[in-house]
Amino acid sequence: MTYTLYYSPGTASMPVHWALIEIGVPFETVRIDFETGAHRTPAYLALNPMGRVPTLIVDGVAHVESAALLMLLAERHPQAVLGPAPDDPQRSKWLETMVFLANNLSPAMRDWFYADKDGSPDGAPAVRDLARRRIEGVWRRLAGDLADGRDFLFGAKAGAADFLAAAPMRWSRTMAQPANDHPVLAAYLARLAALPSYAELCRREDLAPWPA
Amino acid sequence: MTYTLYYSPGTASMPVHWALIEIGVPFETVRIDFETGAHRTPAYLALNPMGRVPTLIVDGVAHVESAALLMLLAERHPQAVLGPAPDDPQRSKWLETMVFLANNLSPAMRDWFYADKDGSPDGAPAVRDLARRRIEGVWRRLAGDLADGRDFLFGAKAGAADFLAAAPMRWSRTMAQPANDHPVLAAYLARLAALPSYAELCRREDLAPWPA
Repeated sequence: MTYTLYYSPGTASMPVHWALIEIGVPFETVRIDFETGAHRTPAYLALNPMGRVPTLIVDGVAHVESAALLMLLAERHPQAVLGPAPDDPQRSKWLETMVFLANNLSPAMRDWFYADKDGSPDGAPAVRDLARRRIEGVWRRLAGDLADGRDFLFGAKAGAADFLAAAPMRWSRTMAQPANDHPVLAAYLARLAALPSYAELCRREDLAPWPA
Repeated sequence: MTYTLYYSPGTASMPVHWALIEIGVPFETVRIDFETGAHRTPAYLALNPMGRVPTLIVDGVAHVESAALLMLLAERHPQAVLGPAPDDPQRSKWLETMVFLANNLSPAMRDWFYADKDGSPDGAPAVRDLARRRIEGVWRRLAGDLADGRDFLFGAKAGAADFLAAAPMRWSRTMAQPANDHPVLAAYLARLAALPSYAELCRREDLAPWPA
């Protein structure tokens, strides 16, 4: 069981990097520097045709899609409890949450940051406006889910769904309505930031912890 | 193990409806008529706060997100082989494909059909233009995956990934570049259309088979 993670600090690779650290399994990393175009080299595009991060090499085979990688790691490392097991009553809700984050939050964040690259620059403001509304809707929904006082999305232990939700919350810090404008989410982020695996992630990616 | 599917003919509920038929498990259905606003009643919004279909009631609890529902059904009915089992070498690729379809194809289709409702009408053309590019990119990618001659996305048997991909292909029939403009996808759709479960889905949803 070998893993190599291609990542770029502070980007979409954060959730998978965080999960690998939380699991405690050995893994190699390759840093992809967007500034130098490392994500556009033929060698990297052969692993990840869209030129994005993360790419996780699992036993020699390249895989993408963060939510899928997190589900895979959860299955392969049940002792790390990254999500409810298949026979757990919470399983349905966990799958739903993972897919909800993958198809609501992730694409909207993509649009927010890359509307002008993915589409036409003329159309970018309209695409970004819709993305912003959707992102703010996700914060409201997650704040609602967490309003019952639970520590993390699936109980007392942080896991894959939290990692997938929390990285985009970090990216919202420059938006008009950052995730931590919701007091429930601010408290949630503080709990996540207190995890040893988060401190280690920030150390390895050379990131300032957020919220400060 | 009881299931009740809230669906609307020919819409995003098709993949889950198809899977339930393919599994052969008993299930109830409730038809949600968008024309009469049945998706906006308080009773339905209590089950599905976004007012969309499908909603699947699993042992009394409402769940949403088609890709997640398909993954759940695959787990609960392994004998139906809706996807590779957790110990199958194809498992990683299957999870990746399910998430790829959920976060690339599904949101782009949402934008294509609902840009003016979800966002501002002024911005809808720009949002739809980007959605169209992404949808056409997905057709190219799926045509590439299937170009090696396999019958279905994961081998000789149709499953959850096929159902999730094929319903949006149907919706593309009014677009400038329908999925079946790709000969590989036209042949794939013909194989899917020949499945008894597809004929039964069309019968129950009162749909004309497509491609004709």
